[in-house]
Amino acid sequence: MENQVVGIAVVGAGYWGPNLVRNAQATPGLHLKYLCDLDVDRAERVLGEYSTVRATPSLDDVLADPEVQAVAIATPAATHLTVAMAALEAGKHVLVEKPLAANFTDGRKLVDAADSRGLTLMLDHTFCYTPAVQHLRSLVRGGEIGEVQFIDSVRINLGLVQPDVDVLWDLAPHDLSIFEAILPDHVVPVEVAAHGSDPIGAGQACVAHLTVRLSNDAISHVHVNWLSPTKIRTMVIGGSARTVVWDDLNPSQRLSVYDRGVDLGREQKIISYRSGDMVAPALPEREALRGVMAEFAASITEGRPPLTDGRAGLRVLAVLEAASESLANGGAFVPVQRVESRVS
Amino acid sequence: MENQVVGIAVVGAGYWGPNLVRNAQATPGLHLKYLCDLDVDRAERVLGEYSTVRATPSLDDVLADPEVQAVAIATPAATHLTVAMAALEAGKHVLVEKPLAANFTDGRKLVDAADSRGLTLMLDHTFCYTPAVQHLRSLVRGGEIGEVQFIDSVRINLGLVQPDVDVLWDLAPHDLSIFEAILPDHVVPVEVAAHGSDPIGAGQACVAHLTVRLSNDAISHVHVNWLSPTKIRTMVIGGSARTVVWDDLNPSQRLSVYDRGVDLGREQKIISYRSGDMVAPALPEREALRGVMAEFAASITEGRPPLTDGRAGLRVLAVLEAASESLANGGAFVPVQRVESRVS
Amino acid sequence: MENQVVGIAVVGAGYWGPNLVRNAQATPGLHLKYLCDLDVDRAERVLGEYSTVRATPSLDDVLADPEVQAVAIATPAATHLTVAMAALEAGKHVLVEKPLAANFTDGRKLVDAADSRGLTLMLDHTFCYTPAVQHLRSLVRGGEIGEVQFIDSVRINLGLVQPDVDVLWDLAPHDLSIFEAILPDHVVPVEVAAHGSDPIGAGQACVAHLTVRLSNDAISHVHVNWLSPTKIRTMVIGGSARTVVWDDLNPSQRLSVYDRGVDLGREQKIISYRSGDMVAPALPEREALRGVMAEFAASITEGRPPLTDGRAGLRVLAVLEAASESLANGGAFVPVQRVESRVS
Amino acid sequence: MENQVVGIAVVGAGYWGPNLVRNAQATPGLHLKYLCDLDVDRAERVLGEYSTVRATPSLDDVLADPEVQAVAIATPAATHLTVAMAALEAGKHVLVEKPLAANFTDGRKLVDAADSRGLTLMLDHTFCYTPAVQHLRSLVRGGEIGEVQFIDSVRINLGLVQPDVDVLWDLAPHDLSIFEAILPDHVVPVEVAAHGSDPIGAGQACVAHLTVRLSNDAISHVHVNWLSPTKIRTMVIGGSARTVVWDDLNPSQRLSVYDRGVDLGREQKIISYRSGDMVAPALPEREALRGVMAEFAASITEGRPPLTDGRAGLRVLAVLEAASESLANGGAFVPVQRVESRVS
Repeated sequence: MENQVVGIAVVGAGYWGPNLVRNAQATPGLHLKYLCDLDVDRAERVLGEYSTVRATPSLDDVLADPEVQAVAIATPAATHLTVAMAALEAGKHVLVEKPLAANFTDGRKLVDAADSRGLTLMLDHTFCYTPAVQHLRSLVRGGEIGEVQFIDSVRINLGLVQPDVDVLWDLAPHDLSIFEAILPDHVVPVEVAAHGSDPIGAGQACVAHLTVRLSNDAISHVHVNWLSPTKIRTMVIGGSARTVVWDDLNPSQRLSVYDRGVDLGREQKIISYRSGDMVAPALPEREALRGVMAEFAASITEGRPPLTDGRAGLRVLAVLEAASESLANGGAFVPVQRVESRVS
Repeated sequence: MENQVVGIAVVGAGYWGPNLVRNAQATPGLHLKYLCDLDVDRAERVLGEYSTVRATPSLDDVLADPEVQAVAIATPAATHLTVAMAALEAGKHVLVEKPLAANFTDGRKLVDAADSRGLTLMLDHTFCYTPAVQHLRSLVRGGEIGEVQFIDSVRINLGLVQPDVDVLWDLAPHDLSIFEAILPDHVVPVEVAAHGSDPIGAGQACVAHLTVRLSNDAISHVHVNWLSPTKIRTMVIGGSARTVVWDDLNPSQRLSVYDRGVDLGREQKIISYRSGDMVAPALPEREALRGVMAEFAASITEGRPPLTDGRAGLRVLAVLEAASESLANGGAFVPVQRVESRVS
Repeated sequence: MENQVVGIAVVGAGYWGPNLVRNAQATPGLHLKYLCDLDVDRAERVLGEYSTVRATPSLDDVLADPEVQAVAIATPAATHLTVAMAALEAGKHVLVEKPLAANFTDGRKLVDAADSRGLTLMLDHTFCYTPAVQHLRSLVRGGEIGEVQFIDSVRINLGLVQPDVDVLWDLAPHDLSIFEAILPDHVVPVEVAAHGSDPIGAGQACVAHLTVRLSNDAISHVHVNWLSPTKIRTMVIGGSARTVVWDDLNPSQRLSVYDRGVDLGREQKIISYRSGDMVAPALPEREALRGVMAEFAASITEGRPPLTDGRAGLRVLAVLEAASESLANGGAFVPVQRVESRVS
Repeated sequence: MENQVVGIAVVGAGYWGPNLVRNAQATPGLHLKYLCDLDVDRAERVLGEYSTVRATPSLDDVLADPEVQAVAIATPAATHLTVAMAALEAGKHVLVEKPLAANFTDGRKLVDAADSRGLTLMLDHTFCYTPAVQHLRSLVRGGEIGEVQFIDSVRINLGLVQPDVDVLWDLAPHDLSIFEAILPDHVVPVEVAAHGSDPIGAGQACVAHLTVRLSNDAISHVHVNWLSPTKIRTMVIGGSARTVVWDDLNPSQRLSVYDRGVDLGREQKIISYRSGDMVAPALPEREALRGVMAEFAASITEGRPPLTDGRAGLRVLAVLEAASESLANGGAFVPVQRVESRVS
């Protein structure tokens, strides 16, 4: 129905904005009204010469338009607090790029602002909407892999060295948001140690290793690296019953579920090895950002929190902030701030 | 010449001993006299029914035989001090499995004993004799990759959980001995932080992450893991000029040398990216242990230190010991003891 | 300049049409006026609700519009003669999907019609505009690989079984157009043998093997298959100096150039083997269809034949037709009709 | 029991003989007495200085020794008739390298000679004793993959160009013996077409494509090639219920069983696609030749035909001979001689 179509504006026409524009246009529950960027020429170039969508440099105009009920923000992280807060104060639902904000305190303000107004605040944790992560989520939270014993995530490639964020804040939000999405409620990050280096003198860590101790005493480790000439995107999730290997660069076999493992007989301390078959589940191919947009539209029209809500973004910020503190303190473990569950 | 053939005995008929037996027999400069194991039946089974080599349970008999000039030791690490010391004291040259000894102090005793007697003490750092590592050594020490910026080594698979050593002491000696072999003299381990976990209750760390800070401020990281259902053996060595990826499980392309990287203009702080070709050098296929045996024979007959001498083994022990201390202390960085160069 | 922008219409809003629409819009030298499909609803759905491009069911209207100087045709092969001929007769330049026409005779008519009117007739041999094929072309035609000794191309996956074309006419045009693009002028298909089978009773060959004997006596073989659950897209081009392997599903290493081969000493009949390095050239990532559109625009404005002109399409048709005859005749070799070069 | 140990001699100390020697020594049911080669120095080098096995240049001596009950022959194919016939006439059981003989008529003589004497004649179709082929056999003959729809086998690498056999006779016996082992009894080769080329002027086909039409009208295709710089060893077996991909160079996932395929509704001609999970069965790692030796020993002591008996070798010869005839006749299909089942 027409009245269920949500009018939306995209703010930010840089690296990611064009993807939001394209996917917003392709989502039945959304109607794209504006692409807003201070550099209006860039916004016009993104829209191209065939589009009926309006380009504008004025966020105020966008927020003043009653036909705009929602805003998708793809501006630099440092501006998230200002832009998202303005949108929430104008009564708009907000979808924001990761990370939620430049720090935990700012992120908390946005969550509170959305809560108090009954507005949707959603994080574009894109990976969480891939068929692979959704399958992983059902395997891990559903108990099929048993107790989580270790996680190892590698996200390295020749990346754009950034002037204002280090490799940790640039890449690790992907891994941390995936952990957030797939781990059962009782398994949460407790403390974090981070080591990094800046071998090219960029002024920021370009290589970082993150050790996250989980509440069940397992370790999840993240290696992020801007300097690797080969691209690797793998995550191994070891469980007491099964182990899953996710290779995101192998489209024909993204997930491999191994019925293989090490068992320790509790009584006799006898170790046994299982070496069963491996199953690669059939996964649909679909663009994750399409799922982000559909979830954003659905959470607004259904008045329910989205899968990756503000608190999910806040939990990722909590780990990032502790990691930065550890990095600054020579790698000591730093406790991770807890984020209470939503009071419904 | 007959007088240049070195009479040798292998001690230990367990997991690795049979490989030493087979390769000693295939090495022109060696003549295998004994396979010695307290369990003489096991030694006889290893030799099989067609062999003229003698099986014996008595190390004393072996060491008393003047035709035995050298001993290759493949017994558990805890016995290395006793067995190797007995051999050195009997005037025999010694090849010993990694790690050199159960701790740095014991290792030091063996190095001193060999030095004072003018005997060869060699470590079976097998990987250092693979064509891949030898090529790596020439690339890294030869300067072709420029300054080392980072190293990342992953050595994980479903491994035999051991009763007496943790995964660090079991697997990381491989990585550390490779670092030792390929890094230039001015780049040495300075401090180490280690994180581990024992998610199956084995009583030992089964998963470990090792962060080694090098003297040029680069990080080399090692991930060792007994619980992974998939086997991974990769090492990435990032350099300022080139980056090498070594995938030991890809026999058709073990080394990939990327003319690709990130450069930082010193003056203007301008970052540039190179994306040149990749070259996979042709490598011969040969068994590494054959090279170990040949080097052992040659170092004895030529009266020179072998490539992987006792000091190389001592340097590996120094890092392992610091890593264990870090593991026990919650992951803090622990300085690595320096091993002075041989006074020749 | 405005007068150098070519007004274009896309005809056919089916499987491939949307890609033509998207790429025509992104090409500076083109201005998209219409998307034409008998099913105008489908055309409108393809354009979406944000587009200023017109949807129309009437080819006549499109061809009558003087602002349309060129037409890109993505209708079923059986209609190519009618649609393309109408466009040429209306004085429009034509870009047509492969295959050029349903048979050689029809294809010849289109080539002649374009020639006589001085209009561009271009084939959308998309693969020929990939960075991989363009590099292959320079390697093979440029002589770097030496004399071509064999080609082996595999293009198999779970494909859409088609009601009106067999797997040969559906998939092999890709391989044949690539051969056409990369082989030197003196190496042309001479005769073809084809074997096929229809194991699911589809009424068409679903698996086919094509053996093309080239004028230098080398064999190029093509395996096309709709029934394979795994997707394979590899081409090996063996040369006397080097051999290239193209794996199109490995984006990080599409081309591998091996300095490896077998040499036969002409005098003494001594065979020698070279086993040199392998080089994987750095290739840009860009959408091939963007290159098709750019070439179409450029060939029109510059008044020159495009890289994949009507004769290239005719040569592909000649091999396909001979292959079909061979298939019908139990696999005997059938000579391939020669296509004379353009008289300029 | 001691009287169940079969005394055996290996004849031929060339490329394959050392493997037979090593595996015969490791097989409990066999006792190796001799390694026989006209070049007795070579035989002695193969045995090495530590062996109690005798080297001899005299086949007569070997055959005259009553302690030798069986002979394993690894001499050139052209000599198989002479050597194997002598052994059979001396009352010895025979294991012979593929191919059974230089032609079908010779092979038939050996089968008849073994039959009439009640002796075991076994082919060393090594691949049939790999865990992968044994699993394939159970999948295909056991009906799990449904009706066989197509087979595609690729066996290419930089191979030793041979003076006396072409690539077809050198490599295709592997593929044909595997087909023989895994196909159900009612699916047999009916006719064969072969295309080959000799682009380096070796005087033999160095590249060949073999199309084997099976009795159920499916095609099995074999590509063998000595000139490919990359090694490929894959076989795809498409079935109506499942499809298996065997990649022999991927030890961590040799077999992949896809629950994926194309179905044709018989009545309505509706085509449907299934896209289910993929299962990679756990396979043991063991040396195939060990299995060959164990089967040879067991078939002798148990007085039963071995899995790969003389008739299996004869069936492979029948296809090879038809393929050679096709190759000589320009690729026309040539019928394959049938080999009757053993009369028991």
